[in-house]
Amino acid sequence: MARIGIIGSDGRMGHALTRAIEAAGHEVSGGIDRGGDAGRLADHSDTLVDFSAPAALENNLHAAVGAGIPILVGTTGLGETQQALIESAALAVPVLQTGNTSLGVTLLAHLVKQAAASLGPEWDIEVLEMHHRMKVDAPSGTALLLGQAAAEGRGIELAGNSERGRDGHTGARAEGAIGFASLRGGTVAGEHSVILAGPQERLVLSHSAEDRMIFAHGAVRGATWLIGQPAGRYTMGQVLGL
Amino acid sequence: MARIGIIGSDGRMGHALTRAIEAAGHEVSGGIDRGGDAGRLADHSDTLVDFSAPAALENNLHAAVGAGIPILVGTTGLGETQQALIESAALAVPVLQTGNTSLGVTLLAHLVKQAAASLGPEWDIEVLEMHHRMKVDAPSGTALLLGQAAAEGRGIELAGNSERGRDGHTGARAEGAIGFASLRGGTVAGEHSVILAGPQERLVLSHSAEDRMIFAHGAVRGATWLIGQPAGRYTMGQVLGL
Amino acid sequence: MARIGIIGSDGRMGHALTRAIEAAGHEVSGGIDRGGDAGRLADHSDTLVDFSAPAALENNLHAAVGAGIPILVGTTGLGETQQALIESAALAVPVLQTGNTSLGVTLLAHLVKQAAASLGPEWDIEVLEMHHRMKVDAPSGTALLLGQAAAEGRGIELAGNSERGRDGHTGARAEGAIGFASLRGGTVAGEHSVILAGPQERLVLSHSAEDRMIFAHGAVRGATWLIGQPAGRYTMGQVLGL
Amino acid sequence: MARIGIIGSDGRMGHALTRAIEAAGHEVSGGIDRGGDAGRLADHSDTLVDFSAPAALENNLHAAVGAGIPILVGTTGLGETQQALIESAALAVPVLQTGNTSLGVTLLAHLVKQAAASLGPEWDIEVLEMHHRMKVDAPSGTALLLGQAAAEGRGIELAGNSERGRDGHTGARAEGAIGFASLRGGTVAGEHSVILAGPQERLVLSHSAEDRMIFAHGAVRGATWLIGQPAGRYTMGQVLGL
Repeated sequence: MARIGIIGSDGRMGHALTRAIEAAGHEVSGGIDRGGDAGRLADHSDTLVDFSAPAALENNLHAAVGAGIPILVGTTGLGETQQALIESAALAVPVLQTGNTSLGVTLLAHLVKQAAASLGPEWDIEVLEMHHRMKVDAPSGTALLLGQAAAEGRGIELAGNSERGRDGHTGARAEGAIGFASLRGGTVAGEHSVILAGPQERLVLSHSAEDRMIFAHGAVRGATWLIGQPAGRYTMGQVLGL
Repeated sequence: MARIGIIGSDGRMGHALTRAIEAAGHEVSGGIDRGGDAGRLADHSDTLVDFSAPAALENNLHAAVGAGIPILVGTTGLGETQQALIESAALAVPVLQTGNTSLGVTLLAHLVKQAAASLGPEWDIEVLEMHHRMKVDAPSGTALLLGQAAAEGRGIELAGNSERGRDGHTGARAEGAIGFASLRGGTVAGEHSVILAGPQERLVLSHSAEDRMIFAHGAVRGATWLIGQPAGRYTMGQVLGL
Repeated sequence: MARIGIIGSDGRMGHALTRAIEAAGHEVSGGIDRGGDAGRLADHSDTLVDFSAPAALENNLHAAVGAGIPILVGTTGLGETQQALIESAALAVPVLQTGNTSLGVTLLAHLVKQAAASLGPEWDIEVLEMHHRMKVDAPSGTALLLGQAAAEGRGIELAGNSERGRDGHTGARAEGAIGFASLRGGTVAGEHSVILAGPQERLVLSHSAEDRMIFAHGAVRGATWLIGQPAGRYTMGQVLGL
Repeated sequence: MARIGIIGSDGRMGHALTRAIEAAGHEVSGGIDRGGDAGRLADHSDTLVDFSAPAALENNLHAAVGAGIPILVGTTGLGETQQALIESAALAVPVLQTGNTSLGVTLLAHLVKQAAASLGPEWDIEVLEMHHRMKVDAPSGTALLLGQAAAEGRGIELAGNSERGRDGHTGARAEGAIGFASLRGGTVAGEHSVILAGPQERLVLSHSAEDRMIFAHGAVRGATWLIGQPAGRYTMGQVLGL
């Protein structure tokens, strides 16, 4: 049984984490939100889960390092500055930063990377996602994570090889490009498909979430897996043993 | 048995039409291409099928009117000028202009209109399409036709209520909007889905074409159905009796 | 704002109805369960929703008739005796009895019937459903309801034209048959697709439920729609204006 | 450039193979059908492709062994007797027997095996396939091949853990079972999905073939890859380097 501290405990994800920690037989050591004392929370926790905001990240990493405990960072919208802070903290404690804590998505990214590596450039790769009507950005972080997995499989940079927001006279598809398309509507919790379209045949690798609880379950599994690991940066794939 | 004249006979669609006309037990009265004499073709035809280019439309309509025979126009990329020419020709002969001659798509558009009319504005409507890697525009003409059907069902204008090419910080979905997303890859002949996403449930109405021959089959059925109709403008829905 | 009485208030559906009534801005006038006084409940309600048991139906209909208010009956497992009781009550008050109160499924059945009526026998019809691992029968009641809609559209009897449980050497598909296939797994709330497969093209009309709450939402809409209608028997299709 | 002999040259697959061999820049050394002399064909070939019938297999293997050349066997409906003949021939020459020569399906089977190995028994596995209305057996050979890959990933026997042809009162899903469902209709060339359904989330890994030519292309790639390999039994996965 691990004592898990929740940073961002008042948000929807914070509530889900509380339920997931209890369902897995662990203990919520405490929860803080904007302005809470992360250092004090860390002192009586075995591991931290952070689903708060980019602005709070530096303080949260500091707390984990100060207490010598791991931290799983699920906050989205991180930039290069935050990534550098994570690299630095990972010299002292185990850190896992990810845009998606679902076990299914983690496995999907792994399969996508392999498929992209096995199939030649005559197979076009598209990433499609659908989320509820309230989502404010596109593509989803998970769609980008899957696109990144495809790019790694192909040995290319995602940044220079993306086709996003197709509309109007686009011209034919660029050789080797990775396309993205986003659907919004209803209350859809999250669906992602990676389509590999070759000559006369197609592979589609998809994930659908019925409920956002799956992200909380995966975060708890990741945060507890980190306990006892040496300092360093980890991935959800390693948590699943992929 | 009808004698059907093909305008645009050298293109891929032209060849498909020849096969479809023969398969249906009709007769190809002749075929012309760039620079061909449409008037002469019309004189020994019972009906015309035009899959050529917007620039040729005026001449082709003129030929149909001159011979007093119907014409089915499947040419894409028509603007307001061409629509006015069609309106004018339809005073003299039966004219059917459509972005999609498939029977399945015609029925789909009919079902979409009804679904959009039955469901309230708390149901979001999205149109998704996938086509082969060589397609140069997005969304497809058929996707727009389906979006138009949804807009008619809802009693709104499509023009001011479309969300196209979502990318970046889009904000939450606009109430009542009709969204479009386009996938490109491989050799996909054409797939379209209209998604109606409500609170906790979703309807998806889809069509997939295995082969572009279905457009030729539908065009032949439309062109022969026009024979004997009074002058006027017709739709594929009328051909199917919807 | 309507006052809605819940018969069967302690069951899973009863709880869902309470939430759905509040979400729609109506008022729960009261709830009863086994042994509760339906007559008293009816006296201070504008309409009743009954998701209890076949044995309680006579008493519940009696209460509605006594108070002169409508009743929506969603109880399953009704036999001929109960249907006769419903016919009799419908002489005095508006009654709606249905095996599926989801708006999406109701609309889907309507669209399936039309599609089946428009397309000729060279289009094969298949009904596919997926439900959670605990479901004990196949195909689902909703799959059969959709197959029935397809059969009506075609003007055939479902009973003599079904292909179920394909396995082994089945021979080619029978002309005009309606096929059924069932998937089971995970926690899937309910997904249904009707596939119409013709020469080189396919229509797929699908519904997916994220949550069983949709049945409660539809029941509330149906029960309030009944208020002010003349005595008689109604369907969910009428509620949707189909 | 390889000289490839076709056994079963008059069938639809035989014709596709001729086109695929030419498209790949190889040479058709000859083709035989019922009653043809396989030995003579083998004598002037570098490799054989056999899409004929189980009854002809013994003779065909004998021809390959006699000429000391490889053979790819794509014939379906093989039993234990035929498998023993293949084992025996594989002592002398390279033999590749497979129910599906598509590169996409080969990769899919590989991904399915991995996914099944990574996910625990709380994830249910279902195999769904759709084929044209003329197909006479169910499930398809490819569906069984995918089920076999899932069973290997899980470390179980497929034979004792299959749920096929669900219909009527089936009871809840058996723990660890692999389910199969078959759809039939229209002119569908072949679609397969493996669904892994866990608590509140789902992975779907799918393949669709637009045209049967993909099987011919893959068979040609397999048959030429065998040339120069030591005697033994090979798989399409090895051809793809998986």
